[in-house]
Amino acid sequence: MCRWAAYLGQDIYLSDVLIAPAHSLIAQSRAASECKTATNADGFGIAWYGDRPEPGLFRDVLPAWSDPNLQSLAHQVNSGLFLAHVRASTGTATSRNNCHPFVCGGLSFMHNGQIGGFDALRKSADMLIPDALYGDRKGATDSEALFLVAVGMGLQTAPLAAMEQAVATFEHLSKTHGAAPHIRLAAAFSDGKRLFAVRYSSDTIAPTLYYRWSESRRGWAVVSEPLEQESGWIEVPAGSFCVFEGENVEIQPFRPILQYSDPVGD
Amino acid sequence: MCRWAAYLGQDIYLSDVLIAPAHSLIAQSRAASECKTATNADGFGIAWYGDRPEPGLFRDVLPAWSDPNLQSLAHQVNSGLFLAHVRASTGTATSRNNCHPFVCGGLSFMHNGQIGGFDALRKSADMLIPDALYGDRKGATDSEALFLVAVGMGLQTAPLAAMEQAVATFEHLSKTHGAAPHIRLAAAFSDGKRLFAVRYSSDTIAPTLYYRWSESRRGWAVVSEPLEQESGWIEVPAGSFCVFEGENVEIQPFRPILQYSDPVGD
Amino acid sequence: MCRWAAYLGQDIYLSDVLIAPAHSLIAQSRAASECKTATNADGFGIAWYGDRPEPGLFRDVLPAWSDPNLQSLAHQVNSGLFLAHVRASTGTATSRNNCHPFVCGGLSFMHNGQIGGFDALRKSADMLIPDALYGDRKGATDSEALFLVAVGMGLQTAPLAAMEQAVATFEHLSKTHGAAPHIRLAAAFSDGKRLFAVRYSSDTIAPTLYYRWSESRRGWAVVSEPLEQESGWIEVPAGSFCVFEGENVEIQPFRPILQYSDPVGD
Amino acid sequence: MCRWAAYLGQDIYLSDVLIAPAHSLIAQSRAASECKTATNADGFGIAWYGDRPEPGLFRDVLPAWSDPNLQSLAHQVNSGLFLAHVRASTGTATSRNNCHPFVCGGLSFMHNGQIGGFDALRKSADMLIPDALYGDRKGATDSEALFLVAVGMGLQTAPLAAMEQAVATFEHLSKTHGAAPHIRLAAAFSDGKRLFAVRYSSDTIAPTLYYRWSESRRGWAVVSEPLEQESGWIEVPAGSFCVFEGENVEIQPFRPILQYSDPVGD
Repeated sequence: MCRWAAYLGQDIYLSDVLIAPAHSLIAQSRAASECKTATNADGFGIAWYGDRPEPGLFRDVLPAWSDPNLQSLAHQVNSGLFLAHVRASTGTATSRNNCHPFVCGGLSFMHNGQIGGFDALRKSADMLIPDALYGDRKGATDSEALFLVAVGMGLQTAPLAAMEQAVATFEHLSKTHGAAPHIRLAAAFSDGKRLFAVRYSSDTIAPTLYYRWSESRRGWAVVSEPLEQESGWIEVPAGSFCVFEGENVEIQPFRPILQYSDPVGD
Repeated sequence: MCRWAAYLGQDIYLSDVLIAPAHSLIAQSRAASECKTATNADGFGIAWYGDRPEPGLFRDVLPAWSDPNLQSLAHQVNSGLFLAHVRASTGTATSRNNCHPFVCGGLSFMHNGQIGGFDALRKSADMLIPDALYGDRKGATDSEALFLVAVGMGLQTAPLAAMEQAVATFEHLSKTHGAAPHIRLAAAFSDGKRLFAVRYSSDTIAPTLYYRWSESRRGWAVVSEPLEQESGWIEVPAGSFCVFEGENVEIQPFRPILQYSDPVGD
Repeated sequence: MCRWAAYLGQDIYLSDVLIAPAHSLIAQSRAASECKTATNADGFGIAWYGDRPEPGLFRDVLPAWSDPNLQSLAHQVNSGLFLAHVRASTGTATSRNNCHPFVCGGLSFMHNGQIGGFDALRKSADMLIPDALYGDRKGATDSEALFLVAVGMGLQTAPLAAMEQAVATFEHLSKTHGAAPHIRLAAAFSDGKRLFAVRYSSDTIAPTLYYRWSESRRGWAVVSEPLEQESGWIEVPAGSFCVFEGENVEIQPFRPILQYSDPVGD
Repeated sequence: MCRWAAYLGQDIYLSDVLIAPAHSLIAQSRAASECKTATNADGFGIAWYGDRPEPGLFRDVLPAWSDPNLQSLAHQVNSGLFLAHVRASTGTATSRNNCHPFVCGGLSFMHNGQIGGFDALRKSADMLIPDALYGDRKGATDSEALFLVAVGMGLQTAPLAAMEQAVATFEHLSKTHGAAPHIRLAAAFSDGKRLFAVRYSSDTIAPTLYYRWSESRRGWAVVSEPLEQESGWIEVPAGSFCVFEGENVEIQPFRPILQYSDPVGD
């Protein structure tokens, strides 16, 4: 099922989220609490923003708990905006290109959840990726395909609408050619300035999503499950789209309704 | 550019081709003689047939010369039919799924060469892969796409015709949307009983291809470049399709002429 | 803590032990039942005997459940004698050279358990490895050191005595310079003809060890925990040394009493 | 033989040394000009200093030219002091722990060259590593052993003397138990403030070593071979020890004369 954590705020070491907390992301790779698969050992990845428009991206196939490169990077790299993910595969191979986050230009994206029956949908999903972005389709995951389709639908300039349309498209694809549950989604993405998060499901079970403002760090942590026992973690309701910018968060309804003509047919 | 070697005959250890000869395939991964890139260090793979219809497949990203698993396997595994490949990437990432050989059911395939301008063609190429075979499209190489399209065109039952059509299709795709040189091909594939090899180019430079009957082993070696200095290596002319079966080889012309309506448009 | 399984008998596919059973070794890499760490995702390895005196050895760092090379090998390789292991690290890095089994000439060895306080003992342990065998000391595990010391003490010709002495030596090393629990051991090793297993602890908790004769396969399975729910699995008592040869098993007491003068001092 | 490059000066992106120059370190991994092995594809590593006393360390086994993580890191990480290395193995396995640089506390070290007959010396070399530092002995290379012995001899406080003694010790070890050429060394190391480089050989062939002050970057580049064709690269004479600090470089004779009683005997 995967676990992830994202941060936006004053620069901190990645280790403040990945390693230091009692229930850090790396601790969750060994034993998560709030997801179907306790172990998330099918690879990991981090995308972090610095001086450049494009984020750095570091992904590998080892379990996060055993990779010394990740430990070193987390202790050295400072960033005010980053995404980190530990993976439990829902079917596709363990390889670097199937690890999250995914990056396209200055955009980064990660996902916990799945698109039902994706094995039977992958060709159709790949065909929905705009020609100009197909070079960024490097792996075989549902997550990467969803991301690139959303980018093609205007994720850079209209993040809510584009993500709604992309999710609606894949939900429809799954309903017509896939299997239930059609789509379950707790995702985060960024344009290098703001941090976005979505929580949605086509049925009643949406993967968990929380956030918390840290006064000490002056930053937002947005996570699959809380990093420590302390209070202050707010659960995002299913069907929500969050925009974190500076010290503000705005939460809007997330309504993926297919607006365009059906691109794949019934 | 890659180097490869295949064998059909009495059971031998894989090491008889991979390691033992003076200019073995692993030696060629360090320093090939007859190709543009002397070093072929972007991964390797072996597919070997035994008791089952499907071959075994072992691929990894380390240079072939440095992988102890490959050494061990080569010294232990006996087979009367196998394909082995060392890779020099023509653009796509170094990952297991981009290493040759590729396997689809009981068929295996490997390739030295390229399809010109493939970066711009990949989406169209992927779309040509039959829906039922898309689950086998695991990487991003031109070679894997060509193979799966050929399988869809009947490689199992009509190997020459299917490969001609597949090559013609990709040559056309490259001419309309890609770049010169459009297609260069020295490939080998097998159905578990026979060994096939093709040498073709859309221009005047076809990647090298040789074969030799070994009386001592009672088997055929089919290679990118000879494994030793000894005589007996016969060069396959460009535009040829070879069928090795038992102790016989039959060489026919290879004429990839696009017979079907253009599937991708101009 | 690790899980392992070994087999001696008529040739079978490795998959008969690694994949096919309801609680196969690969299933145990995801979720073992009878050990402290349910997840054994810090690498895996197999050593199998065929025509040669030295076994084949294939080890890698991915979790066993996610490695397609392992799947392929297990479905293709037949053997009448093999050792297979999935690792949960007790401290040392995840790397191929820290995965079991270990091989030295025609001998192979794997281990579940640990030597207490090994971090502080490693240099002393390394010094106990005979000069002539130091080239085989490739990693940093307690298991590999124990094995090589045992080889130096005559494991090839007097397996029981050599293993008793090696274990006694390391137990003493841990008592004088390490930490409790000093040594816990469920290990298997082979000389290419016979299969040996040991179960021992310096305290009251010895890692589990079972065996079973399979009438259908005509072979012995020796395991950390049973591969299926069926009856017939016999638990080996702590303090035992088992010798499997042909269709026979002989179980003797295992009494590691330090006979030589203390090689490391107090 | 390996190639390496180090930098001390104003913060720059690692890519300024690793990627951007015409004959960058990654270009040298494909095709070096001034060393025995043109290809250096047995892994790579970078150690870089930032805010912490300990440097970051990132090492992996892929050829440097094919690793996207390295590309990403190099484009993102700024540092005023770093070491980078691409490896051609002189015998030991390709694994992360055998890649340079090596790190011990706040010290980092990398090496091009070898200690003659090291296979036969490794146990003796390991015994020379102080007990307190043995936990940092993670691989099997001559380079890591030399480094840790030098640390034990006072590399932190008396870098010239400690390195002279360590080199003298290993040269003696090779002369008494190894093989010619006994020691060839072009090495760089750092304490997080200064950058040191050594060029030495027990015979007439010392691996190459150059340095250059960059006015535009306001920093020192110290390399195995020049990163571009431009003038200004100064060759360090064999038998020299260089200290780079701020905008100054001081070059002293390097005279490894064994001062202590022979620790290993004849």
